[in-house]
Amino acid sequence: MTTMDKITYQPVRDELAYTFGGRLPVAHLRSGDVLEVDTEDCFGGRVRTAADLPSRVCRMPYLNPVSGPFFVEDAEPGDTLAIHLASIVPARDWGVSSTFPHFGALTSTAHTATLQPPLEERVWVYGIDRQAGTVRFQATETHHGINLPLDPMIGTIGVAPGGFEARSTIVPDVHGGNLDTPRLRAGTTLYLGVNVHGALFAVGDGHARQGEGEACGVGVEIATTTILAVEVIKGVSTVWPRLETDVTVMSIGCARPLEDAYRIAHHNMVGWVGSLTGMGLLDAYQLVSQVGRAPIGNVCDPNYTVLAAVDKALLPAPEPAYHGAHTRLRQHTAGLR
Amino acid sequence: MTTMDKITYQPVRDELAYTFGGRLPVAHLRSGDVLEVDTEDCFGGRVRTAADLPSRVCRMPYLNPVSGPFFVEDAEPGDTLAIHLASIVPARDWGVSSTFPHFGALTSTAHTATLQPPLEERVWVYGIDRQAGTVRFQATETHHGINLPLDPMIGTIGVAPGGFEARSTIVPDVHGGNLDTPRLRAGTTLYLGVNVHGALFAVGDGHARQGEGEACGVGVEIATTTILAVEVIKGVSTVWPRLETDVTVMSIGCARPLEDAYRIAHHNMVGWVGSLTGMGLLDAYQLVSQVGRAPIGNVCDPNYTVLAAVDKALLPAPEPAYHGAHTRLRQHTAGLR
Amino acid sequence: MTTMDKITYQPVRDELAYTFGGRLPVAHLRSGDVLEVDTEDCFGGRVRTAADLPSRVCRMPYLNPVSGPFFVEDAEPGDTLAIHLASIVPARDWGVSSTFPHFGALTSTAHTATLQPPLEERVWVYGIDRQAGTVRFQATETHHGINLPLDPMIGTIGVAPGGFEARSTIVPDVHGGNLDTPRLRAGTTLYLGVNVHGALFAVGDGHARQGEGEACGVGVEIATTTILAVEVIKGVSTVWPRLETDVTVMSIGCARPLEDAYRIAHHNMVGWVGSLTGMGLLDAYQLVSQVGRAPIGNVCDPNYTVLAAVDKALLPAPEPAYHGAHTRLRQHTAGLR
Amino acid sequence: MTTMDKITYQPVRDELAYTFGGRLPVAHLRSGDVLEVDTEDCFGGRVRTAADLPSRVCRMPYLNPVSGPFFVEDAEPGDTLAIHLASIVPARDWGVSSTFPHFGALTSTAHTATLQPPLEERVWVYGIDRQAGTVRFQATETHHGINLPLDPMIGTIGVAPGGFEARSTIVPDVHGGNLDTPRLRAGTTLYLGVNVHGALFAVGDGHARQGEGEACGVGVEIATTTILAVEVIKGVSTVWPRLETDVTVMSIGCARPLEDAYRIAHHNMVGWVGSLTGMGLLDAYQLVSQVGRAPIGNVCDPNYTVLAAVDKALLPAPEPAYHGAHTRLRQHTAGLR
Repeated sequence: MTTMDKITYQPVRDELAYTFGGRLPVAHLRSGDVLEVDTEDCFGGRVRTAADLPSRVCRMPYLNPVSGPFFVEDAEPGDTLAIHLASIVPARDWGVSSTFPHFGALTSTAHTATLQPPLEERVWVYGIDRQAGTVRFQATETHHGINLPLDPMIGTIGVAPGGFEARSTIVPDVHGGNLDTPRLRAGTTLYLGVNVHGALFAVGDGHARQGEGEACGVGVEIATTTILAVEVIKGVSTVWPRLETDVTVMSIGCARPLEDAYRIAHHNMVGWVGSLTGMGLLDAYQLVSQVGRAPIGNVCDPNYTVLAAVDKALLPAPEPAYHGAHTRLRQHTAGLR
Repeated sequence: MTTMDKITYQPVRDELAYTFGGRLPVAHLRSGDVLEVDTEDCFGGRVRTAADLPSRVCRMPYLNPVSGPFFVEDAEPGDTLAIHLASIVPARDWGVSSTFPHFGALTSTAHTATLQPPLEERVWVYGIDRQAGTVRFQATETHHGINLPLDPMIGTIGVAPGGFEARSTIVPDVHGGNLDTPRLRAGTTLYLGVNVHGALFAVGDGHARQGEGEACGVGVEIATTTILAVEVIKGVSTVWPRLETDVTVMSIGCARPLEDAYRIAHHNMVGWVGSLTGMGLLDAYQLVSQVGRAPIGNVCDPNYTVLAAVDKALLPAPEPAYHGAHTRLRQHTAGLR
Repeated sequence: MTTMDKITYQPVRDELAYTFGGRLPVAHLRSGDVLEVDTEDCFGGRVRTAADLPSRVCRMPYLNPVSGPFFVEDAEPGDTLAIHLASIVPARDWGVSSTFPHFGALTSTAHTATLQPPLEERVWVYGIDRQAGTVRFQATETHHGINLPLDPMIGTIGVAPGGFEARSTIVPDVHGGNLDTPRLRAGTTLYLGVNVHGALFAVGDGHARQGEGEACGVGVEIATTTILAVEVIKGVSTVWPRLETDVTVMSIGCARPLEDAYRIAHHNMVGWVGSLTGMGLLDAYQLVSQVGRAPIGNVCDPNYTVLAAVDKALLPAPEPAYHGAHTRLRQHTAGLR
Repeated sequence: MTTMDKITYQPVRDELAYTFGGRLPVAHLRSGDVLEVDTEDCFGGRVRTAADLPSRVCRMPYLNPVSGPFFVEDAEPGDTLAIHLASIVPARDWGVSSTFPHFGALTSTAHTATLQPPLEERVWVYGIDRQAGTVRFQATETHHGINLPLDPMIGTIGVAPGGFEARSTIVPDVHGGNLDTPRLRAGTTLYLGVNVHGALFAVGDGHARQGEGEACGVGVEIATTTILAVEVIKGVSTVWPRLETDVTVMSIGCARPLEDAYRIAHHNMVGWVGSLTGMGLLDAYQLVSQVGRAPIGNVCDPNYTVLAAVDKALLPAPEPAYHGAHTRLRQHTAGLR
């Protein structure tokens, strides 16, 4: 990581992508580069007022656009791509959320299909005050309102999948994608296994904040300007996405039913703890069982997301993960936050 | 709550209960009473060394004993029983955990049945230092060890179920039971709907600490001396168990698959937020979607447990829950911690 | 089975049971006895016209009554109780079905909880013509009607559970109970593991017919006169319920999610095929994978039911199951059909 | 359908496809054309003896090849493509099955992840006697063997998905794909919604027979020569795949957990019965609940498959489905069987 270029990318509308895979790159990066990228919100910016019902103003499959994909030189199948989120800034002074017919955790859906009519579709517009660090919820039927902490995150980030697949940006899976976890905030490094030459990562779907599970199916959706740095970790493979912060390592599982997402994340974490510490499999299983947290990401997307999180301070003498990539990228981007 | 008696109960072995329901009470309490109760660990105290494999020293169905049940005067079906956990103190200077054949989240089980042999059964003995507030993990195959924060909790607490049922203490459900969530620590008030005259609550299965999901199926199991206070909230019904701390209100859902536990907890929380604030249903759904946390309790018991947690400070002008029972019981037991 | 008594039992209303376990026996039987028992329908006979909405005329937990329990002499834990269904005759010339708020496979429920209002509650009354062998469906909104084949079955049959439990008759599980599979028709032998002295089996919840899955949650519910014969198979244990006809052996799994019910049933069937034929585990797995059918019972009750079914003619030289109990009981009751 | 061409297609190895979508067509068809197509088995023909363990001789993602895709002129998004299977003939006198590490219903998998080692990988070679109509199972550990009825079926058939996606041929979903239901035998018409211009359907993965659920994850895998006929039904959309035989109409649902596959299939069938008969929604729900069968397809693929099946004779005066396409295609191909 001797060189560092800062690349800036602002997509025009026709450049937005709706799949991971099946697309040509919009720009080339090298390991160590910093990217400042503008991202649209999940509605493509079309939902701006309470009158803009998503099912009217949006058209399938033009939902959840991502910026990219970006070709990372020297990234090959079998490598890992580390992406450090240095900064996620809301691009506007508002965000929106909504209900959406037959989408969300507390409604029947196209998969959990029932004969009941859908819940009413409705839009909530949130005011964002970047200075104060707040997002304002305003009820639609009554005068209730409250300022919530601003906690920007990236909902969708991933690489091209393997096996010649192209997957909708709505889907989270082994390649990343619509992970929808509030843990993807600034200060976090994401590790993704590389499936195709150049990795072809893309990013979008910012949220000003989101509850665990994204119960109604929609966060406080925002366009963002996001600064990130990438590093290719050669010869180290990663199966399921992983996260690292200064304090915590996390594994991500995406599946239905939700317990399989839990199993994937924790199976992965047990192996990770074993390799970071040198402990045996059952000892690692035991320790994770007593110190692990299991934050839920989403319970609304085509695959649900659960994380396994372990604080590094609760592990006996762990080695740095991925040869210290998180620390390196964090220092690397220190001046950019 | 004008009167306050402190009742002390130390069960002898033959008094331990293995079901909620189907048992005669061991003592009578009145609303406002404080109870100091000794509880055994989930193995009945039979697993003390690495040689005490649970499947050898324990005999079904004599697992997960609870102390009780306690008859609470004036508690009738349709009322709510508030139980405030004032103090949970480990009774010994050790705790144990284990793997157990075909039990746990990362193994096939009697329900997620596969043809593979079970994982090896193994016991971990933890040293507990109450003064230092630590629980010591020691690996069994290597020399790795680490001190973890002591964070005592109650794994199993519930009332007699309705419908003439008697349920194994292994099961969490609408009556409470084997909830296995680390949120059931001292300082927390549990609300349970009363199903039978006298409520007939019982308590046991302490853990020195537990990860979210209790991945291997077993926490750091301890006997405890637990101090709690009860209050009957007349004419207020509660369907699924709820928790309250000084900061947070929480709803508990128990079901399989795990998403149904999430749905139950969040469906319940949306209704609760609506009634605490006066907001409409969809507004409450929206707010919970952005501020809710969803801590997983267990992913190993016959029903899995997920909580919906909302900080009271993120709700617009909520009324006190259950007429302020939590605050009242907290003050009531202030000298007992 | 040298002796044979025919016992007749017609419960009066107050004798009906709403749990398996937790009840005293209504009669005593000996191995080899034949029982003619009257059973009420799942609504206790209270739903007779389109105006009798179940949620109005029925009161929880007084749903799904069973006749019994019957004490079977010499049945001990570790034995198997074989119950051969010789005859199931509708007791009236009508049956009823209904939707029921938040119950059924194509609606949100108390567990798959959504914020949508329930489907409309509605009753369908079916005419039964025993001579013609038909059940007449009549649409409620239009003039459509059609005669369906009469295919009487028992919805709920089981023994007292172990572990001091008493379970609602709504629940299917390892002890049997609300299995709700159309395969429980006359000519079938049910094998249940004995958990308590005397087995304490009970039976009820007849259906004139039922689709696989019981999608709306309710079959064509009927009162019946049922003739069955029992045999205690000493020293042979049975974990999950099994069925046998002249042609087929079947294992029953009850669980959520539905794939766990499938896993239980097929795990059990692989072991059964192995022991009936003497083949190794993987060979039995392979053969079951190619010849097994997997009829779904219910997708609406607290546990779902899936069967694994294998025709005996597709097994290489199997031994008679349970020492030939099915053939023996079938001959034994030949004159009673 | 005034014209009829018979097209013959025999792929060379490099032409085989491993995705639906993302591929150029190998041939063009017109509505009414008959296609005779050779298909390889799921292992690409590489597993021929007990020594050919799939994980050694096959390489991801080169599994489950399909022949195609075929461009159907005039097929546009919003239309339905009817594909009638006239004949499925095994291409060789043998078939193979196997266990495969961490794949199948009775093993832990990459999604239902456990810490147990995988089941042993093993191959079974079946002899096929087309004259006798048998498939011979031979145990690997003992001398057990038995002739099973030959019942050839197509495991994988589908069209290009919408939304710019390309999906692995391992996956069943709304576009068809790896449906793995024994109901896809000769005499059956499959209806698939068209997502892209030309539909781009492909077919492969024959089985000599398969149990419901495909428990071990692998049927008796065969190469086939398959004869089928296509018809474009203009202006009639189809969401989830449907089947029709002379006797039965069937809807297919693909999802996890298995109950969602059941829900999708039955939700779709209720709507279909409503439109075929003119009955109201709840009446159709009621009738399907009493007459529906729910055959399970697979419980091993990335999505599970359940069907809802209703015999046309049990519906009151139904109209012909899809303007009589099944009858028309059946007559059209009468001489080709």
